[in-house]
Amino acid sequence: MKALTGIRVMDFTNVLAGPYCSMMLANMGAEVLKVEKPYLGDDSRHYGPHVNGESAYFLSINRGKKSVTCDTKTEEGKAFFRRMVEKTDILVENLKPGAMERMGLGYDALKEINPRLIYVAVSGFGHTGPYSPRPAYDMIVQAMGGVMSITGTPGGDPVRVGTSIGDIVAGMFGAFGAVNALYMRERTGLGQKVDVAMLDSQLAILENAITKYAATGIVAKPMGLKHPSITPFEAYRTKDSWIIAAAGNNNLFAKLCQVTGNEALISDPRFDTNPHRNQHIDELSDYIQAKMYAHTTEEWMKIMTDAGIPCGPINTIDKLFSDPQVEARHMLVEVEQPGIGKLKVAGNPVKMSLTPPQEELSADPAPELGANTREVMLSLGYSESEVEDYLNKFQNKDKAVKD
Amino acid sequence: MKALTGIRVMDFTNVLAGPYCSMMLANMGAEVLKVEKPYLGDDSRHYGPHVNGESAYFLSINRGKKSVTCDTKTEEGKAFFRRMVEKTDILVENLKPGAMERMGLGYDALKEINPRLIYVAVSGFGHTGPYSPRPAYDMIVQAMGGVMSITGTPGGDPVRVGTSIGDIVAGMFGAFGAVNALYMRERTGLGQKVDVAMLDSQLAILENAITKYAATGIVAKPMGLKHPSITPFEAYRTKDSWIIAAAGNNNLFAKLCQVTGNEALISDPRFDTNPHRNQHIDELSDYIQAKMYAHTTEEWMKIMTDAGIPCGPINTIDKLFSDPQVEARHMLVEVEQPGIGKLKVAGNPVKMSLTPPQEELSADPAPELGANTREVMLSLGYSESEVEDYLNKFQNKDKAVKD
Repeated sequence: MKALTGIRVMDFTNVLAGPYCSMMLANMGAEVLKVEKPYLGDDSRHYGPHVNGESAYFLSINRGKKSVTCDTKTEEGKAFFRRMVEKTDILVENLKPGAMERMGLGYDALKEINPRLIYVAVSGFGHTGPYSPRPAYDMIVQAMGGVMSITGTPGGDPVRVGTSIGDIVAGMFGAFGAVNALYMRERTGLGQKVDVAMLDSQLAILENAITKYAATGIVAKPMGLKHPSITPFEAYRTKDSWIIAAAGNNNLFAKLCQVTGNEALISDPRFDTNPHRNQHIDELSDYIQAKMYAHTTEEWMKIMTDAGIPCGPINTIDKLFSDPQVEARHMLVEVEQPGIGKLKVAGNPVKMSLTPPQEELSADPAPELGANTREVMLSLGYSESEVEDYLNKFQNKDKAVKD
Repeated sequence: MKALTGIRVMDFTNVLAGPYCSMMLANMGAEVLKVEKPYLGDDSRHYGPHVNGESAYFLSINRGKKSVTCDTKTEEGKAFFRRMVEKTDILVENLKPGAMERMGLGYDALKEINPRLIYVAVSGFGHTGPYSPRPAYDMIVQAMGGVMSITGTPGGDPVRVGTSIGDIVAGMFGAFGAVNALYMRERTGLGQKVDVAMLDSQLAILENAITKYAATGIVAKPMGLKHPSITPFEAYRTKDSWIIAAAGNNNLFAKLCQVTGNEALISDPRFDTNPHRNQHIDELSDYIQAKMYAHTTEEWMKIMTDAGIPCGPINTIDKLFSDPQVEARHMLVEVEQPGIGKLKVAGNPVKMSLTPPQEELSADPAPELGANTREVMLSLGYSESEVEDYLNKFQNKDKAVKD
């Protein structure tokens, strides 16, 4: 048994923020019905990289879900949607605010059908406030939310965080809200609406940059590869790539000086305390960097780890696929995907002791578009002939478009 | 009532990953007892920025919690810790793996006292695997987890993400695991251990970079301010700063050409489809950029928003403090902190409809070190004289150190 075994989620979402949210719920054992528009499905089914014409990107965020096609622009589709809502614990959507209401499927309408429904809306700017109707994408909220202005090299241009944290962090807060609402429902019998904005979520992860401005008026700037308050704590170039080394106290600083052949610096009055090292950060960097070219990153990793100095390589993505810790933690798991074959995707980072470990060693495939429409309709009490009519109208066209 | 009203959390954590996890639980209404070492408390009480000698940084991550001092190196302290565990729903710790066990306070020992206990461990590399005993910091897992290798300008050095996503994302997965375990406990009566690693959490947010390598063998690289697959979708310099503009389809592309005076590009065969635009991205950027210097970011925001083109400024941190959407969503809330006065901190990004909105308009202050030791001891059945003995031994020294 997993934490959310027996919980049904309707995943009426597209691309990343919403699908990531429902993937987290699927990882916890929820049954996730991806409700997709007929013919095309989730937009990300058409995003690269493709393998044999199938989107590996879609697979990576939608593994372990089921797929139901439902055209919510038709009355027939709306009726099907509402019948699913009656039997659903959590609905996740990431449309623009107001779009669900225009279809008659907003929270206020759906809670009349199912007062126990938990309705999670993940949107760019949230369901209130002056920017609410505006469209947003990951890069736009990364820009507006401030993280881009503090990421980059000192004096250089701002840069985007290389992964879509604008989407993903919002999906994570949405999933957290969903399970909190589920727990509250156990005690009150009531569902509720969880409204998560991508912009809000960016504010929530800024930590010291907000505090610094609030307390001192100083506007944080990009720091490249240096730490804002601990020295030395930065990246050095080695013979073959890079290494991060961190000496957060005088004892570790002395060890770092010893292993790099900089013993004279230990008692140097410029470097004898962390505040002094912060003051003379550039000189100190130069002394240490000068010695770092002598060995490869792997050699330095051994030397520093043996000396107890916190350190780590800057891994490129390929390195993760052969890292023994990543393997031991099952953080890259295999999916056997029809049409694609075996492909590795990121595993579940939340390791729960009551979840049987063998359930986390691989992941279930992503669904073919509409693969579960029939079973879901039958389970809701549609008759065989109603199901056939519906499938003739929509589902067969899914296949036609694909063929 | 909030989602976690009535739930007690012991927050035996330091600095960021663990405290962020328990702050999320506090935001949902849990009573969080910060269990701190006497005299010094959480290390971050000594981190800047300071206001009147108090750490604003500590305040920002520990607002709304209580503080209990407990020296777990003494038998007396261990006994107090265990008595708290008996009355606790969720324990969060972020010590190095093995440290709790060496004190006799590991999960296996604590579940004997309280089988309903949910034990959340947030650590650098997790409680299993070959790197488990190694120390880690945010920058080290950002480096090892791959995000640094895909963040930065094309061809330039890797850079650290400007906020501590190595810590924060792990804290978020920890909080998600905690509430899932709470929900599972409602149905099974059993607590469990939730083991979250900072490195694992980095893998979990890499999305397309992992898929791209798994599917094609291509190692993702930093892309600066461009989007990996949509063109045009990037940052342009304006008369006074920057703007992000995104034209994800031909219709939006035509509008962007119109507002920038580039009508001739609309039917240019180099730019007539998104794949073509991706192929000729540098030429297209140059054409659009050349026109962008004509107006300020604010002027372009109005022009593009009116035209329906998704866009956003690259906000520096100060801009967030006057943004109308941030204000409307209560994402910067005021804390009235003794010793500091009024200070703004990030609000709760998870907006729950059953939580009274007025409870989210401000935040409670962070606790003085040991402020709640007495009340917690009395509530656990310690006698007045036992409490006095304990406070004389530890608490008064807290004050002495501070004075």
